[in-house]
Amino acid sequence: MEKNARLAERNRGGFRAKKLLVLNVVSSPGSGKTTFIRETAVRLGTTQRVGVIVGDLATDNDAARLRSAGIPVIQITTGTVCHLDADMVSKAASQLDLDQLDVLVIENVGNLVCPADYDLGEDLRVVLLSTTEGEDKPLKYPPMFHSANVAVITKCDLAEAVDFNRDLALLNLQRVSHHAQIFELSSKTGEGMQAWLDYLTGQRELMRDERDA
Amino acid sequence: MEKNARLAERNRGGFRAKKLLVLNVVSSPGSGKTTFIRETAVRLGTTQRVGVIVGDLATDNDAARLRSAGIPVIQITTGTVCHLDADMVSKAASQLDLDQLDVLVIENVGNLVCPADYDLGEDLRVVLLSTTEGEDKPLKYPPMFHSANVAVITKCDLAEAVDFNRDLALLNLQRVSHHAQIFELSSKTGEGMQAWLDYLTGQRELMRDERDA
Repeated sequence: MEKNARLAERNRGGFRAKKLLVLNVVSSPGSGKTTFIRETAVRLGTTQRVGVIVGDLATDNDAARLRSAGIPVIQITTGTVCHLDADMVSKAASQLDLDQLDVLVIENVGNLVCPADYDLGEDLRVVLLSTTEGEDKPLKYPPMFHSANVAVITKCDLAEAVDFNRDLALLNLQRVSHHAQIFELSSKTGEGMQAWLDYLTGQRELMRDERDA
Repeated sequence: MEKNARLAERNRGGFRAKKLLVLNVVSSPGSGKTTFIRETAVRLGTTQRVGVIVGDLATDNDAARLRSAGIPVIQITTGTVCHLDADMVSKAASQLDLDQLDVLVIENVGNLVCPADYDLGEDLRVVLLSTTEGEDKPLKYPPMFHSANVAVITKCDLAEAVDFNRDLALLNLQRVSHHAQIFELSSKTGEGMQAWLDYLTGQRELMRDERDA
């Protein structure tokens, strides 16, 4: 763990030198991480060029889905390991042309527990909560939600079909992730995506200004 | 791990001596484990008396939901631990009156990775896959799906709303969990529940007959 923390800082130093905004996207399996990342990258288009590192126990399905949308992507398959670590990310990042990117998105293994403990060198940890999972997940997985800088409620187009209680979900998020920026969106319909994209663009500009100052 | 394997066998010996059918229910967060277990217990009623051990990182929400349905339940809160182990289950089971039960259901921490490695002393490992998570989960989390004796597709009432591809899901399940018994149901509407209850009753009778023989 101490070794991971040091390697994560090394990653952070390297990413900052390249003026990359780096996101670590975490969630349950099936919360819609890949679709969310694909829509984010495609909608940002050429104004912010996005590269992706994808972690899964097995298969390169997610990488294939992103690659078919023209997104540069490296797949990490972890075998039985329940999280990405800083060393895996360092090796995967070395296979991307970082000078051609503005934003690097790391899609972690679908798991609301183990990835909480592993800094990857990211600027923002983004946790997804899909409406189909229920409102109580922040309370039941507090380390992950507490460590997030951004919480995104996904699959909002299904909210009605699953009787999603929005007020309760927001209350639970605010209790556990009280410092986190919250977005509500549907990657499928595009509803709510613009506010997220504007935030991301703002964060990237803020970072670039700080480093230029 | 070796210590856990031994403690799991000790649990198994104890459970068998009590003629209990023991299930270890695993899935992603939000796949509907608690609702599935509650509906199973309520519908079995007094023909098969069900007790439950529930694992979560935090909160006793799930235990409260089960208890309000009249089900004997013990909550384990694991803190930051991503799975239940045989020792936790042994301690929790000692707080239940096992002589009054026919079936013991262990609801594991919501996680498709880590619980795969921990035998709890169960007779049947039951993995849930909800229609809202997508069809590819068996391929992406093979150790868990491969180790399951039973695979249950849940939230079938939402299949149409989420464009669930049933044929693809069954194909993926058969590839990874080729030995597993598969059920498709909705705990909410009750659709498909009877086949699952009949199977469970059959397994319990089979077990009792074997031990009486």
